[in-house]
Amino acid sequence: MTSQLKSFIEVAQDSDFPIQNLPYGVFSETAEGMRRAGVALGEWVIDLAALEANGFLQIHSAEFIFNQPTLNKFIDSGKENWSKIRAELQHLLSADNPTLRDNHELRNQVFFKQADVSLHLPVHISGYTDFYSSKEHATNVGCMFRDPKNALLANWSELPVGYNGRASSIIVSGTNVVRPSGQIKLPAEERPIFSASRKLDFELETGFIVGKSNTLGEPISIENAWDHIFGMVLLNDWSARDLQQWEYVPLGPFNAKTFASSISPWIVSMEALEPFKTSSPVQEPQPLAYLREDHSSNSYDIHLSVEIQTEGSEQTDVISQTNFKYMYWSMAQQLTHHTIAGCNLQVGDLMGSGTISGSAPESYGSLLEITWNNTKPLTLSNGEQRSFIQDGDTLTMKGHCEKDGLRIGFGEVSGKVLPAVQFDFAADHAEEKLSEAV
Amino acid sequence: MTSQLKSFIEVAQDSDFPIQNLPYGVFSETAEGMRRAGVALGEWVIDLAALEANGFLQIHSAEFIFNQPTLNKFIDSGKENWSKIRAELQHLLSADNPTLRDNHELRNQVFFKQADVSLHLPVHISGYTDFYSSKEHATNVGCMFRDPKNALLANWSELPVGYNGRASSIIVSGTNVVRPSGQIKLPAEERPIFSASRKLDFELETGFIVGKSNTLGEPISIENAWDHIFGMVLLNDWSARDLQQWEYVPLGPFNAKTFASSISPWIVSMEALEPFKTSSPVQEPQPLAYLREDHSSNSYDIHLSVEIQTEGSEQTDVISQTNFKYMYWSMAQQLTHHTIAGCNLQVGDLMGSGTISGSAPESYGSLLEITWNNTKPLTLSNGEQRSFIQDGDTLTMKGHCEKDGLRIGFGEVSGKVLPAVQFDFAADHAEEKLSEAV
Repeated sequence: MTSQLKSFIEVAQDSDFPIQNLPYGVFSETAEGMRRAGVALGEWVIDLAALEANGFLQIHSAEFIFNQPTLNKFIDSGKENWSKIRAELQHLLSADNPTLRDNHELRNQVFFKQADVSLHLPVHISGYTDFYSSKEHATNVGCMFRDPKNALLANWSELPVGYNGRASSIIVSGTNVVRPSGQIKLPAEERPIFSASRKLDFELETGFIVGKSNTLGEPISIENAWDHIFGMVLLNDWSARDLQQWEYVPLGPFNAKTFASSISPWIVSMEALEPFKTSSPVQEPQPLAYLREDHSSNSYDIHLSVEIQTEGSEQTDVISQTNFKYMYWSMAQQLTHHTIAGCNLQVGDLMGSGTISGSAPESYGSLLEITWNNTKPLTLSNGEQRSFIQDGDTLTMKGHCEKDGLRIGFGEVSGKVLPAVQFDFAADHAEEKLSEAV
Repeated sequence: MTSQLKSFIEVAQDSDFPIQNLPYGVFSETAEGMRRAGVALGEWVIDLAALEANGFLQIHSAEFIFNQPTLNKFIDSGKENWSKIRAELQHLLSADNPTLRDNHELRNQVFFKQADVSLHLPVHISGYTDFYSSKEHATNVGCMFRDPKNALLANWSELPVGYNGRASSIIVSGTNVVRPSGQIKLPAEERPIFSASRKLDFELETGFIVGKSNTLGEPISIENAWDHIFGMVLLNDWSARDLQQWEYVPLGPFNAKTFASSISPWIVSMEALEPFKTSSPVQEPQPLAYLREDHSSNSYDIHLSVEIQTEGSEQTDVISQTNFKYMYWSMAQQLTHHTIAGCNLQVGDLMGSGTISGSAPESYGSLLEITWNNTKPLTLSNGEQRSFIQDGDTLTMKGHCEKDGLRIGFGEVSGKVLPAVQFDFAADHAEEKLSEAV
């Protein structure tokens, strides 16, 4: 049984990273040091570039696959190699294999404490798409911003609604986030004002990394879609609700989301998640043929949570607990729909799930929903109140699967919010130039 | 006077590419051959990599800037180098300079007939953003799809509305476009159907290429915005109106636009466009301070047109003629707004203007507007009728500036529409699997 596979490296019972996981990331010994691929095992990172240099993990003899600043080359090598490398790593790290276990010189080269290294964006993300696939979330937002009686728009149940996000502002866990500024429309004012966002929010999401591209004009069928998915990460899709509400009609969210999206540093492979496959909700109406698949095992049982820690506080509060399995649209359906009109996906593209909310308030995936747009503020255990995120707050999302004594985790995606940029528009100067122009 | 500068290469009076233009592109001698940078002069491409190899156009001694498959490295070298290289090229190509003129061996190395080479995407485009900055276009669309009495939404006059496009499906002029398929909601049907798009449209746009990046969290001020713009291209933002209408609420256009966006192969530099600066419309209300600039010279007088040629026809019909100067929001305003919340732009990013419509039907920038959503079909000179684009149609957009005998042109962006993919959903098989699952 896989769950009985053991490594010669001791891994704590509650670790996210047993030998059955081996999620992929990119690390360097110093912040500016050379980036290369690694996998997490317990508290350690295993340097895949060092293993490669020592003759292990060979894919192409002609070029380095792991001595690279991103995982794209490895991912692009294909699904067979994902399996092959994973199996070789599990073999190499297993308790009963002396090859690495007893080679202390090599062990010194390949093992680094996670606490001692810098973790980076694991992939170069060319395209970022964010879906909106939690029925509970879409319903909650529809209730607040549109019509409670028709909260879910007609298209929502027919297709996985999604939009193009901004790939350049995707950051790795641990990177600070500057509070965004922009136009806000206050109800009492006739015109918008310029302000730092007053409704800064998180969105609890997962994302999957595209592992196989398709050619422009050649859609990926639902039958083949799973073969195009390399693995999953945690995603915090930071959102400025006040900017969003003013700007999003008719072309969708823009500045409200383009200032930062944080992902966890470790990509958990679909193979590692395999034991946690589960059903997704029954889809009613039955989707059109191109989106149809067996719903009995097209989701994953992934526990997700959000914690907040305010500036200077020792206290951390868990403010949401939910599960990936509540998602209405599967990852395969998202991917197939994305390409059905011909769009080409690229290796390393990130596809966000959309905010994952359950049916109870404790399982809502954003502050907007938890505090019901400021009408039900949260009281934290240190007595502070929150409707939206304050400067100095650190938001941390975690995720893990657990079953029959096997725990496969995602680690975390964390980020601290810094105060907004101070602007000086030299307003007089602008007025002057303007009057000259008229 | 610049307009009297002459090259030793003969350039036709009506050419888009006199020595005053020298737009940048990427070419190869054969379709799969080595890509490198070039500029257009009359009917010729000048091989900048060959000039570089012969000791001209030196920016960094340590690396090749023009012997590259995209222009990104050159663009990233900075605005001073854009000017320097342009000046050196104009000097090298001028009629009274013997250096290149009289060196026949070198001339053989650097001059290629445009008709004999393959032109490619000139830049690697990391991010693609499309704005919606023509008041006439936004008003027309608002009239058709929302409320004629309140066609322009309140936010439209306050900020340059835009959305994230899909960068991976940007293609160079001459690339065929496969008709997209997807979900269409017909008025008489309760549920959407799956179909090839029946309302395939073009959108006449220009785009600008970002020439200088900014750091995440550090907005670009309106005063500095122009320094971040390298040059302009023509852009056909192909759109499937029926997919769009069903999918776009609430997160904006997605599959309706992600199947293809075509750009012209030549990037016209802002320096070449300098003589054609003109005013943009007076903005009422006056924008918020961060978007304020002198409107007397923040636009360009660029004549734009769209031609259609149907399959097997010798006839080409001009179906729209408009001008870039009608744009309400300037490129600097678009760029500043894009970064005001902190979003980082990257060298090579493409920013689309949005459809450029004038006030008269002859100047509308899409078939949706020209035929007023199918209610006023066009009759072409060969007798065929068009409401939307048919398979086999070739759409060609052109653009040029003209003043005091000087013509600076963009060449063209052209694309032919191919029939949709034939789908076979193996519906029975899907049904079978589904019933097993239930």
